[in-house]
Amino acid sequence: MGTISSPHVGMKINEWNRHIQKFNVTDAEMLKAEIERDIDIMEEDQDLLIYYQLIAFRHQLMIDYVIPSEGNQMELSQYLKRIEGSNRKMEKLVEYYYYFFQGMYEFKEGNFLSAITFYQKAENTIPYISDEIERAEFYFKMAEVFYHMKQTHVSMHYSSQAYNIYKTHDLYSVRRIQCHFVIAGNYDDLESHEKALPHLEQALKGARLLESKNKRIYGQALFNIGNCYLKMSELTKAAKYMEKSILQFKKSNFNNLTQAYHDLALIYFLQRKQDQAMDCFRKGVRFACKFGDGLFKIMFEGLQALFIKKGEASILLNVFNKLETSQGYPYMEELALLAAKFYTEIGQMDDSVICFKKMVHARKQIQRGDCLYEI
Amino acid sequence: MGTISSPHVGMKINEWNRHIQKFNVTDAEMLKAEIERDIDIMEEDQDLLIYYQLIAFRHQLMIDYVIPSEGNQMELSQYLKRIEGSNRKMEKLVEYYYYFFQGMYEFKEGNFLSAITFYQKAENTIPYISDEIERAEFYFKMAEVFYHMKQTHVSMHYSSQAYNIYKTHDLYSVRRIQCHFVIAGNYDDLESHEKALPHLEQALKGARLLESKNKRIYGQALFNIGNCYLKMSELTKAAKYMEKSILQFKKSNFNNLTQAYHDLALIYFLQRKQDQAMDCFRKGVRFACKFGDGLFKIMFEGLQALFIKKGEASILLNVFNKLETSQGYPYMEELALLAAKFYTEIGQMDDSVICFKKMVHARKQIQRGDCLYEI
Repeated sequence: MGTISSPHVGMKINEWNRHIQKFNVTDAEMLKAEIERDIDIMEEDQDLLIYYQLIAFRHQLMIDYVIPSEGNQMELSQYLKRIEGSNRKMEKLVEYYYYFFQGMYEFKEGNFLSAITFYQKAENTIPYISDEIERAEFYFKMAEVFYHMKQTHVSMHYSSQAYNIYKTHDLYSVRRIQCHFVIAGNYDDLESHEKALPHLEQALKGARLLESKNKRIYGQALFNIGNCYLKMSELTKAAKYMEKSILQFKKSNFNNLTQAYHDLALIYFLQRKQDQAMDCFRKGVRFACKFGDGLFKIMFEGLQALFIKKGEASILLNVFNKLETSQGYPYMEELALLAAKFYTEIGQMDDSVICFKKMVHARKQIQRGDCLYEI
Repeated sequence: MGTISSPHVGMKINEWNRHIQKFNVTDAEMLKAEIERDIDIMEEDQDLLIYYQLIAFRHQLMIDYVIPSEGNQMELSQYLKRIEGSNRKMEKLVEYYYYFFQGMYEFKEGNFLSAITFYQKAENTIPYISDEIERAEFYFKMAEVFYHMKQTHVSMHYSSQAYNIYKTHDLYSVRRIQCHFVIAGNYDDLESHEKALPHLEQALKGARLLESKNKRIYGQALFNIGNCYLKMSELTKAAKYMEKSILQFKKSNFNNLTQAYHDLALIYFLQRKQDQAMDCFRKGVRFACKFGDGLFKIMFEGLQALFIKKGEASILLNVFNKLETSQGYPYMEELALLAAKFYTEIGQMDDSVICFKKMVHARKQIQRGDCLYEI
């Protein structure tokens, strides 16, 4: 797994390109070397590698012009013609990637506003990009980004554009499945789980064909259906798919096992199947420790407080305190609602009210946390 | 006040234009007459009138070609040259308005996905529209539309683009104020009321200068600040601004009086100023009846149940039932949270839990209601 994020390296390539344009040979050479070292330890990113190659080509042209090998002296006009005139499409691609990575970087930093501005500039170059798949990749990335920003309808708009391209290209079955995942995720955010389900089923159909090559996506497809049924309170179906997903994840020891065991334990607890629930609970805790998943360790403490210690409120309040972080709030919201319902059922209304208040608090913090910019 | 929405008329102009392109003289003439009747009773919309004029000009050209007056016979090539060649900007404007109104229409119908697609097509023609104010108008409309869709960050992006243009044009002070309103509304949705406040203060500064010409916007600016302080639980400040806004609204008997009295009654009830609260309550109910504002009539019943009948739960449940409509849910969410806190304070935990559940229910319905499309 890479330790450097690709938007970070993308920003360095943007800077490298600026040095090339100013003929700063030394700075350009230094950055080039640095970027190459980064790429070796970077998370995998096809787009970034294409961008690197585009700029490396420009770099070489610049070197040929500034430090020509014998008999290869170039005129400035020749140089400019070579980089500008010869390949208009390449020119636009450079521009596209420049804005795209600038957008990705701002997105990662939480500056959603400037991210959107840069993405829009990238999108404006799209008419010049003739490759359909390249366009689909952009739409898909936008679908993902706006999904994470919870701009649900905008994400839906991009997912359907991406999907319409991928569906005509047999080779892109993984992306097709991922499009279904994003669409379903958006429907979940719109509390329309019944509309998410058909997309998850189509994703599963596609993923089944890839079972031998891609166990993770097959497991994920099963998990997503199980999770969707859990949200719809259809516990029997939820358990069935969750069990199947665990079988897949186990085959390669994927870290998704933690969440799958957590959800399955919860389902069994809700079904009052205490033994099966305890079994999943223990396994889940073990995987949370193994993968160092701090948030799920806390979530298992939440399950413990409610279903093993019979609703011990002091433990639960302690769990809420631990979730008082920007990553923790979505988990707090979920757990608080679960606990509020749990206490209502056993008639502990005071505790129920405390949990509802925690839920309201968590949701407020989530919404506030989305706003890291000033205007 | 107009009885026909402008997007509806916009769609008719789109159809009219298609008839012109096909030389369907009779249909074009009939639609033209119908549209002109519609415009007379339509809500005010500058954009629509420009669009109408553009197409009316084409209509005349088409008539001149098909039914020439003596000695004015036109060749087809001449006709085409006249509509296509002579004015590329006009061509693009027609295209722009075509997509813009198509988008507005889909938005009104709740088809957010196709609305976004058409808006994007309209936006693609923006580079050809040289008039800066025309561009600002588009950005402002998008800011409003995405605000209503709760695509907060996207709305912020457009508001800041619109604002940056309007701020350099002294004549557009109303739009500048409206931009501040939209930005503040988005900050409210991000639970960042402290960031909304400076924008509302700037809006107020601008609105004060317009006081003699535009009482409504001045009242609205005061109201928005009061409402923001109410959300921040700063009741003394909230009351001060709310009172001032009522003074303005009264000057022209604006229907905003209903909500202003409702909010002020609530503030006084929360401050335990029973007499002042009752005075506002009565006046508010009167205005709700006068303006036939059904939703606020129900909201006043909610205040009555909580603060006059000392939390009579059966009345409150009845109020919730009446709010069980797509327009009612946002009001139900607000009232349910208010009531839940009220009951917690007086120790009626059972009733508090019921209200929290209503709040969760209302929020779910709001999110579901946003999804009127299938993908």
